Amino acid sequence: MTRISERRGERRSTAPRQTAWRRLANLYPPMRVLSDDQVEAIHETSLVILETLGLEILDDRALDRLAVERQRVDRASRRVLFDRHWVMERIATAPEEAVLHARNPERWIAVGGNHIVFTPVGGPPNCHDLDRGRRPGNSRDLTDLIRLAHSINALHTISSGMLAAQDLDQRTRHLDAYFSVATLSDKVSSVSLLGAERALDGIRMNALARGISLEEMQVRPGLFGGINTNSPLRVDGPMIQGLTAMVEHGQVVVVTPFTLAGAMGPVTLAGALAQQNAEALAMLAYAQMLKPGAPVVYGSFTSNVDMKSGAPAFGTPEYAKTTIASGQMARRYKLPYRTSNCTASNTVDAQAAYESQMSLWPAVTGHGNFIFHAAGWLEGGLVASFEKMILDAEQLQMMAEFLQPIETAREDFALDALAEVGPGGHFFGAQHTIARYETAFYAPLLSDWRSFQTWEADGARSATERAQRIYKALLAGYEPPALDPARREALADYVARRKREYATGGASTLP
Amino acid sequence: MTRISERRGERRSTAPRQTAWRRLANLYPPMRVLSDDQVEAIHETSLVILETLGLEILDDRALDRLAVERQRVDRASRRVLFDRHWVMERIATAPEEAVLHARNPERWIAVGGNHIVFTPVGGPPNCHDLDRGRRPGNSRDLTDLIRLAHSINALHTISSGMLAAQDLDQRTRHLDAYFSVATLSDKVSSVSLLGAERALDGIRMNALARGISLEEMQVRPGLFGGINTNSPLRVDGPMIQGLTAMVEHGQVVVVTPFTLAGAMGPVTLAGALAQQNAEALAMLAYAQMLKPGAPVVYGSFTSNVDMKSGAPAFGTPEYAKTTIASGQMARRYKLPYRTSNCTASNTVDAQAAYESQMSLWPAVTGHGNFIFHAAGWLEGGLVASFEKMILDAEQLQMMAEFLQPIETAREDFALDALAEVGPGGHFFGAQHTIARYETAFYAPLLSDWRSFQTWEADGARSATERAQRIYKALLAGYEPPALDPARREALADYVARRKREYATGGASTLP
Repeated sequence: MTRISERRGERRSTAPRQTAWRRLANLYPPMRVLSDDQVEAIHETSLVILETLGLEILDDRALDRLAVERQRVDRASRRVLFDRHWVMERIATAPEEAVLHARNPERWIAVGGNHIVFTPVGGPPNCHDLDRGRRPGNSRDLTDLIRLAHSINALHTISSGMLAAQDLDQRTRHLDAYFSVATLSDKVSSVSLLGAERALDGIRMNALARGISLEEMQVRPGLFGGINTNSPLRVDGPMIQGLTAMVEHGQVVVVTPFTLAGAMGPVTLAGALAQQNAEALAMLAYAQMLKPGAPVVYGSFTSNVDMKSGAPAFGTPEYAKTTIASGQMARRYKLPYRTSNCTASNTVDAQAAYESQMSLWPAVTGHGNFIFHAAGWLEGGLVASFEKMILDAEQLQMMAEFLQPIETAREDFALDALAEVGPGGHFFGAQHTIARYETAFYAPLLSDWRSFQTWEADGARSATERAQRIYKALLAGYEPPALDPARREALADYVARRKREYATGGASTLP
Repeated sequence: MTRISERRGERRSTAPRQTAWRRLANLYPPMRVLSDDQVEAIHETSLVILETLGLEILDDRALDRLAVERQRVDRASRRVLFDRHWVMERIATAPEEAVLHARNPERWIAVGGNHIVFTPVGGPPNCHDLDRGRRPGNSRDLTDLIRLAHSINALHTISSGMLAAQDLDQRTRHLDAYFSVATLSDKVSSVSLLGAERALDGIRMNALARGISLEEMQVRPGLFGGINTNSPLRVDGPMIQGLTAMVEHGQVVVVTPFTLAGAMGPVTLAGALAQQNAEALAMLAYAQMLKPGAPVVYGSFTSNVDMKSGAPAFGTPEYAKTTIASGQMARRYKLPYRTSNCTASNTVDAQAAYESQMSLWPAVTGHGNFIFHAAGWLEGGLVASFEKMILDAEQLQMMAEFLQPIETAREDFALDALAEVGPGGHFFGAQHTIARYETAFYAPLLSDWRSFQTWEADGARSATERAQRIYKALLAGYEPPALDPARREALADYVARRKREYATGGASTLP
């Protein structure tokens, strides 16, 4: 016993220093890059797009539903022209805020309003770390990434899609990912919306992990998931089916058009924004049609391509502008706003850092509520990087501290200290300093502020090399959150049963 | 002839791609982190500081002048208590904007208003590049840095103090630096204000380089210089003498208290800001007393120390907040605002990038007018880095592009293109795209957006390694701006004469 506690104590003392997990509010006025007239012009154009060009919706059930709502549905082309009043009336029923509940009751998050939530990377097929280089990601990498994201306090949620593990059957790997997330973390998590079954598996497993019914899930939602439109102006069937399952079960849906200017959107930012707004409004209206008051989020992912190569670029000046502009659009509709932390860099270097910052500053100052890919995203989303997780964790911690307003109570002005110290003096020894110095300033996770000589004598490690040590220390210190063995067994049983069903042709026993 | 032009063409084609030199305006609403009440509380506290604690001013002539103005001067302690009405009346005569004229008539800059100016690093005794490592900087390094800063279009000005060349006599190295700046660049430049003589040498040499009289310099100023207060609450003699020389000759003076919270300022941000504001207001009022309407700038450099080591930290969340807050203070007095691009990193890595961004975003969104150290600053200002120059140039270019508002004219909405492309289509081939693709988006200087495979096959170079190639290419392609040989000779004669005077005891022939 003594030995274990000694070891634990040791581990704790060498554990990387982090700020505590905490919910964040953004009390600063939001940044604006559009005038009110410009916001209205984008709004108006997007309604004209919906009225005159409409969307192609590759789902018959959705077309039926929209026809019932008297939208102009052309069965042959699957094109739907929307009525602007219908769209705006539907949008008006969306709530400004929603709460998502975690397995750990203390880890609930608020989506919308002044709240800001950081989520880890989602989607990459590859992963990278300094030791092993870039490689297709496997299930061990995924669980390590989940452990790491759980351990990083700056991340409010976990993501089931931190990596698409290439060694697993792609039909059922979502089940393995959900199981890992449910057992390795107790934060709010995301679910894949690529089809209704993946969404429903996620919803059922979240209920099992939390030991509640699907009815209770409706009242206390615990999952979020994102759909992308297949820009321009198309919505794929699986996406709309995933959205529908989530809405019907009361979970949070994020709708994000992928309007990469010059490729899937016009080469002009105004054009790409109007298209984004049209696609987002239509799908959010659809969600509200399914269930008025369903918690939804307006997503933006309008960046641009390199017109020489066609390669997508992220963290560009254009991306910074559309990120802030999209926040203005979301606020116009009183909708929570989702944005991202992006970079196109191929390695964890200065470019990765400045492009992430070129995403994060607009996201934060533009009042993003839900910052996807906030840690670990590299190479335009093709790679989940272990070192980038730490680089981003530092940046998120700094943003969290930036969001704490300057305090200006009487004692904060330190007039007595200034009188005590006097001209040319030093504040280190002042009573006012001594009473506050331990918590006065942000303490970094990754930044090295030592003198050059001290830093050099200690190995002259770059931020990326230091990030490697930190992620390894976090993984070494990882402890799984407690989980009732009965719930764990129920989850395992569920996965086993569903895998059998998928193997025998996918006949689902889901309701 | 053919051969030369071929070579020139060749050089041009391999020259790093940059955006053009251009003046910038910030048309976005400024970020705010303080409420109006908080701004007033800081203002009020700073006036209380000036009234009750005052400043120690280590210059008898300044004490005389302030006594004439009926400020409460204590000769024994050299302490001056200021009258708040006097301070505010003096401040009110400061202009909101000033224009600085360069040797090249096209390179004039506007200071204040909505304008934003980027200046290169100033002050370091050391320099660094990947080949040669960190070392004391010498005169060759200084001239290379000047050539590089001249070549970087994102930098609006040059700085005579990019490096304090350690191989030169420190009494006269300012003359060598001024000569280098005047001959190697035609941008607006800075001058050292460490004493009246350094300022006056700079003013005389700027007049010689531009071929104008000191009277014309008054009407068309061409120099800026900064003084720091010796915080807390002290002003050194040489600084006030340098300021006085500049004001009397009509050049721009930037007053920047060095209120490092926890060391030279209170450990609380409100306290450090109030102290900064008090020190800045007093010195700016002094400048206006000397000459009402003198062009001056309100400077902020309020960061914090690491309370464990006492090491200064930059690009911290606290720094981000005080940078935006200080912009609010400067605007309260309708004064141009100076801030900086800072990092404490010991090397050009991801930390250097994200700390710079944590400085630049607040500087830009907080409506900094004059961004000092905008390129090349490393290691808390102890090092001028060649690779950091390029890393920062990219970031400044991106900021400049971010400041171009989204255009929302009818054709920007691209409705025809959207109709032409249709659902699921691609915009690459659209007429709207073809007409705009060459200039549609920001083209990077340093960022590499190629696929991982292409990037890897080309050497897998990090951003810092690519920055090395770029700075070398810029230096290789450097061409000095034309300078009338007579002016060059006049400058050389001036330097020679003044060096003799310094050698024989400093008896100056300056007016």
